Amino acid sequence: MDLEKSIRSLKDYPKKGIIFRDINPLLANKESFQEAIDVMVEGAKDHDFDLIAGVEARGFIMGAAMAAKMGCGFVPIRKTGKLVGDVVKKSYSLEYGEDALEIQRDIFPKGSKILVVDDLLATGGTSTAAKALIEEIGGEVVAFSYLIELMDLEGRKLVEPTPVYSVIQYE
Amino acid sequence: MDLEKSIRSLKDYPKKGIIFRDINPLLANKESFQEAIDVMVEGAKDHDFDLIAGVEARGFIMGAAMAAKMGCGFVPIRKTGKLVGDVVKKSYSLEYGEDALEIQRDIFPKGSKILVVDDLLATGGTSTAAKALIEEIGGEVVAFSYLIELMDLEGRKLVEPTPVYSVIQYE
Repeated sequence: MDLEKSIRSLKDYPKKGIIFRDINPLLANKESFQEAIDVMVEGAKDHDFDLIAGVEARGFIMGAAMAAKMGCGFVPIRKTGKLVGDVVKKSYSLEYGEDALEIQRDIFPKGSKILVVDDLLATGGTSTAAKALIEEIGGEVVAFSYLIELMDLEGRKLVEPTPVYSVIQYE
Repeated sequence: MDLEKSIRSLKDYPKKGIIFRDINPLLANKESFQEAIDVMVEGAKDHDFDLIAGVEARGFIMGAAMAAKMGCGFVPIRKTGKLVGDVVKKSYSLEYGEDALEIQRDIFPKGSKILVVDDLLATGGTSTAAKALIEEIGGEVVAFSYLIELMDLEGRKLVEPTPVYSVIQYE
């Protein structure tokens, strides 16, 4: 099935010149959601990892669905102030604006191998921050998996040589 | 396995008198995460539904994992300002404080049967708001599924007679 047809594109959102890709119609359709997750699992399955880290909030959806299908655990990488206990924080630039992410310092054993999952690879700023957080607490990112990749923003260049997988690519 | 042992309890967080239940250690352990999802799937599988609705943000994790295992679609119920297009909004009271949830008006066909998933049943305010949103756009909630239920807050009374399932109960 053509998964791109399940994505709703909104021009000039959240600001002029940006096309926002709304993945919710894809998620709400069981055929497109399951196929998207299956494609993401297919890309990830040859990598050796202990855990999937999902980036808040849409990365929780894709990441937890993958973890359920692959039988592994799940680690949330969250926006500021959402995690309790000893947390590590990292600021990063977005396609539009700035934000910060956090991870709990003791959430996995040192040396853990991690697959990072998010809905979208844009500039790579979010993913680079997620990788820095994981490495700061002693983990290793073995690959990145996304539903959508915005090719013209070249985020892939920022996170390579770590392998990058995406289901739908937009020029 | 004793899933309750995978939950980390923090006294007096976010304010005095509240015990916060941190589910992240349960999620990060593949045995406890998979078992928790399997128990939630077991409770849900005799109900006839088209979609799982997950409540932001931890409900995304449990709900999407269940949707992946059950082969159905997923609908996000989000905090204010996160959804694009025509959205319906509902304010509600929390165990501590107040908040609002939104759903996209056209996200599923009228008459759709929905399982609502969240990490925690406390007072039932969030779940009641989620149900009101789903009904306002023509859906029907067939059951609620939670990882944790705080029995003393009696949220179950607020959402019954709709069936309620929970994996871990705290008095």
